[in-house]
Amino acid sequence: APTADVSSANNASVSETVQGLIDSAMAGSYGYDITRDLTTEIGARMAGTEAEARAREWTVEKFKEIGLQNVRIEPFTVPGWERGVETAEVVSPFPQTLFITALGGSVATPEEGITADVVYFPTFEDLESAPEGGLDGKIVFISGRMEKAPDGAGYGPANRKRRSGATEAGKRGAAAVVIRSVGTDSHRFPHTGQMRYAPDVEPIPIGALSGPDADQLERMLKNQEEVELKLVLTPKSVGDLPSGNVIGEIVGTERPDEIVLISGHLDSWDLGTGAIDDGAGIGISAGAAQVILEAGLKPKRTIRVVAFGAEEIGLKGGFAYVEAHKDELANHVLATESDFGAGLVYEVQSGVTEGEGVLKAMASAMSIPFAEGKTTNGGPDIGPMANEGVPTMRFQQDGTDYFDLHHTPDDTFDKIDPKEMAQNVAAFATMAWMASEAETDFRADK
Amino acid sequence: APTADVSSANNASVSETVQGLIDSAMAGSYGYDITRDLTTEIGARMAGTEAEARAREWTVEKFKEIGLQNVRIEPFTVPGWERGVETAEVVSPFPQTLFITALGGSVATPEEGITADVVYFPTFEDLESAPEGGLDGKIVFISGRMEKAPDGAGYGPANRKRRSGATEAGKRGAAAVVIRSVGTDSHRFPHTGQMRYAPDVEPIPIGALSGPDADQLERMLKNQEEVELKLVLTPKSVGDLPSGNVIGEIVGTERPDEIVLISGHLDSWDLGTGAIDDGAGIGISAGAAQVILEAGLKPKRTIRVVAFGAEEIGLKGGFAYVEAHKDELANHVLATESDFGAGLVYEVQSGVTEGEGVLKAMASAMSIPFAEGKTTNGGPDIGPMANEGVPTMRFQQDGTDYFDLHHTPDDTFDKIDPKEMAQNVAAFATMAWMASEAETDFRADK
Ligand SMILES: [Zn+2]
Ligand SMILES: [Zn+2]
Ligand SMILES: [Zn+2]
Ligand SMILES: [Zn+2]
Repeated sequence: APTADVSSANNASVSETVQGLIDSAMAGSYGYDITRDLTTEIGARMAGTEAEARAREWTVEKFKEIGLQNVRIEPFTVPGWERGVETAEVVSPFPQTLFITALGGSVATPEEGITADVVYFPTFEDLESAPEGGLDGKIVFISGRMEKAPDGAGYGPANRKRRSGATEAGKRGAAAVVIRSVGTDSHRFPHTGQMRYAPDVEPIPIGALSGPDADQLERMLKNQEEVELKLVLTPKSVGDLPSGNVIGEIVGTERPDEIVLISGHLDSWDLGTGAIDDGAGIGISAGAAQVILEAGLKPKRTIRVVAFGAEEIGLKGGFAYVEAHKDELANHVLATESDFGAGLVYEVQSGVTEGEGVLKAMASAMSIPFAEGKTTNGGPDIGPMANEGVPTMRFQQDGTDYFDLHHTPDDTFDKIDPKEMAQNVAAFATMAWMASEAETDFRADK
Repeated sequence: APTADVSSANNASVSETVQGLIDSAMAGSYGYDITRDLTTEIGARMAGTEAEARAREWTVEKFKEIGLQNVRIEPFTVPGWERGVETAEVVSPFPQTLFITALGGSVATPEEGITADVVYFPTFEDLESAPEGGLDGKIVFISGRMEKAPDGAGYGPANRKRRSGATEAGKRGAAAVVIRSVGTDSHRFPHTGQMRYAPDVEPIPIGALSGPDADQLERMLKNQEEVELKLVLTPKSVGDLPSGNVIGEIVGTERPDEIVLISGHLDSWDLGTGAIDDGAGIGISAGAAQVILEAGLKPKRTIRVVAFGAEEIGLKGGFAYVEAHKDELANHVLATESDFGAGLVYEVQSGVTEGEGVLKAMASAMSIPFAEGKTTNGGPDIGPMANEGVPTMRFQQDGTDYFDLHHTPDDTFDKIDPKEMAQNVAAFATMAWMASEAETDFRADK
């Protein structure tokens, strides 16, 4: 059995303690309450905004309230971007409004909009393989559906049009781009998310249509030579704005300089209240620490809870953390982030090459299968420190429905199941505790 | 068996013909295609708007295309109302945006909005039983959840706050009202719908919050003495506008003056594209006529298809029909309307006292249970003619999820199941045919 691999000094006592943590977490509503209060008392928390700043202050108070030590904000600055007017109208042949939202980082149309014929590409790959030029002044529409999967495997492929649609269309002379939202629902919510411009291509505006609106436009294009669209998107870049990571700790009793890091990201997109993305991650990581604190346990290593800022616009908090902590990254024993909702954890993934037995014992204690040979970067904000050699693991949550809500106005607290979230909190508490007690430092590169 | 009751002259031949109609309808996509094209080519069709006018022209063309005779528009005028700006902001203690929409017919706030403390009433009945006065200058929030049911039984009780919330709050001195949307979903779509003012009470603005936003406001109010809300709703009344009913017929061969009426309503709210409410009803009734026409059948009585205008703002088309046709109402043999989506029909209801056997035979042919003793007004636009003595029946559709979408932006074509819709079309075709052939005129009051 996996428990046989546990490298802890005192197997029996760990087991009893661990069971206590699991029972407390499962019986309580630790992370759930934190996520509820964050999403209610702050709501949307877009990177760099005054709301994100309020969220940092809120998190400082919450971290203190649950008993974390060394609570502080580590500030950094981010490029500001504000949503403006966003409308899409079919001018002809079937006049009507379509539901659209600008992608994060998009440039604006003129105030009077761009009115042009639509050129349809069933998939992003169709656009990529189109000849250079030939789209002069057109509005490019890129469709393509995203597959549902528990691990969100459809996101990467579907997301290419969001990331690079404006670049590929711009290269070919287009005036603007609309994409079918990167999402798996059929509700009338467009999904936003960050896009990027290649440095050598003139930037053009890009927005996402909701699934039903993309359907509508596809039906129109199917039987018509020409569909004329009027697009008004007036977001703007607003220069550098303050952001920051919020940090709190349970300081270790024996090896305080060695750090087990659990985290989520505090910022959200502006449309919803950021419940599944990623109020849940804040609740799960802080709630796990709270379970340990309320049990009166004293970990040997330091358990550090991080609420990363500005994840959505390019992992700004994750990079800032690496920058601020480069001298102690070698002391980071294990790191993870929850950033995939609060669905039931069905698998433990690990990027470690040493001390895998501890994670197997932990998985066994939680009755979660350990995914042999499946590595992980630990989560988006953990990626930058993983690149610097920090050992990582991840609890794979069931995200089958995650992309129904992701980056839409519908990402709200009602979508979180308290029982499923409790299992997440139990898993994080168990992992943090066992990693803090383990003899191994999870590093092969000693 | 119910078939034994059939009052047709030639039971065997009707059965064969009926089976042919059912088979054609079930194998085809008659109503589905009509609804798809109406919702795609016109989109939202609010009463009195230019879009509703385009929908009438579209319907005239479609009725002709499927082979209906005597296709015409019967015009009438309706009071116009246009949506304006609609925003709700929590000013304190937790600044954030809530998703709101104005109810149809609401007066406006000043352009700068109304900013006031919120007074919470868990249900409309709590407001009704509150003392007169005492709400001076406040924004009243009426919550209360709607129960899901196949027959939509929760709608009537839940709808009281929409209809009369502004009157009851206005009587007590309130400045404005927000209600939890009348709906059964937990998505971030507010549900609109018509409201009314009592003549003796000063009208105040009223809007509906989406379910998740109502949750949010309830959570804020739970722990706070005061929640301040800023409400901007700037709809306006725009005077008389043109509307109309569109009518087409299969003229009867033996009793052309006797009418079997099948219908839906052509107008929709402005937020969605009016697929389940009520593009489906237009598709089902016109699609049923198309099935009969394509079978080359010649009904004895006239089968009349009516696409009612301006149902949403007070059954304007239903009343206009009675006014225009009062001299021939006595010749209306049977009438029905589909206005509850396109879910599977699970029950036949009948308001008739004569010739019930025909409807039982029809129900039997469709394998749909006949609801003994359950009367019906035949549908909203049929109500006015039912009051004048026109016999009615109704196919009860499964509307369990109907109020998830009802009067929201999310009422779009993707929500319709083609197989379920085909069963509706088959039922309407079968009923229209059998009623046109029946010896009875369904009237007890001869
Ligand atoms: Zn995230
Ligand atoms: Zn995200
Ligand atoms: Zn309706
Ligand atoms: Zn309606």
